[in-house]
Amino acid sequence: METNAIHQQATQGLEPIISPEALVEHWQGHRRLTRKTIEAFPEDKLFSYSVGGMRPMAGLALEIMDISEDGITGIATGEWKPVAELDHATEKVKFNSKTELLDHWDQITVQINQVWHQIPQQRFQEVDLAFGAYEGKIIDLLLYFIDNEIHHRAQGYVYLRTLGIEPPAFWNRF
Amino acid sequence: METNAIHQQATQGLEPIISPEALVEHWQGHRRLTRKTIEAFPEDKLFSYSVGGMRPMAGLALEIMDISEDGITGIATGEWKPVAELDHATEKVKFNSKTELLDHWDQITVQINQVWHQIPQQRFQEVDLAFGAYEGKIIDLLLYFIDNEIHHRAQGYVYLRTLGIEPPAFWNRF
Repeated sequence: METNAIHQQATQGLEPIISPEALVEHWQGHRRLTRKTIEAFPEDKLFSYSVGGMRPMAGLALEIMDISEDGITGIATGEWKPVAELDHATEKVKFNSKTELLDHWDQITVQINQVWHQIPQQRFQEVDLAFGAYEGKIIDLLLYFIDNEIHHRAQGYVYLRTLGIEPPAFWNRF
Repeated sequence: METNAIHQQATQGLEPIISPEALVEHWQGHRRLTRKTIEAFPEDKLFSYSVGGMRPMAGLALEIMDISEDGITGIATGEWKPVAELDHATEKVKFNSKTELLDHWDQITVQINQVWHQIPQQRFQEVDLAFGAYEGKIIDLLLYFIDNEIHHRAQGYVYLRTLGIEPPAFWNRF
């Protein structure tokens, strides 16, 4: 029996509970829902409206985009933009319209798909210092990125409800 | 070389990116944060206060507890309580105090830990009909349960902010 065949047979028995392919699809599914949530905001409310003294949805979206864009780069290359230089921290990058913001969102979608398949499988178990500040295993950092997106998007849902706007269905990842 | 040795050698090469042990710890970490969020509410506000016409935090917590409690049972046994009979759907089960609610929360914490190690690894890849209504692979259903908890907890964060109460730090899973 050749090594490859042994490997294949044994790994079929192991059933890893999440594959890299399933995880990126999970992430992109959440990203599609967040995109729909951003879209649901009226143009002016996206940049100005908030509840409880929190950031408007555009500010939350900027943080999510920073973490996705510079996060996937850090995961793939090991080079991280320092947390203090992220766009939502420096406030140097501003989007002037919903379309501009969503265009950037869509560029990140393409970037993630392009970069993902270059990540060696063992990379997910390596410990790194994300954005020069947050130490963790790559897999845990990734889950944190996704969780942080779910967290802030859900706050956008409350903003929409108080505006009398029905948010997109939570189960809709298409 | 014995079968076990072949299996072990090959699986070391595979590096599954999430193990069942890591996933349950991820879930319980989120559950600890949600518990802190519930605790942060003043007793009366927990059951009565909401924003944008949404359910109070106690209602959101009841949904999260149903999904966790009856969800882990369904995953372990294949027997699911129908969605229409879940406590938050029938409204038959009420908690009269924060302590009562948190006591039930803590019972579910113990239950998850007890049941988890009885789940065969291949179960995570099986397709099932959660609560008689939602078809999916067990692993995807589990991620959905966790995501749904993050989503509703984040709405509780907005409630707390509007009450002038600082929510627990999002990164705190201890």
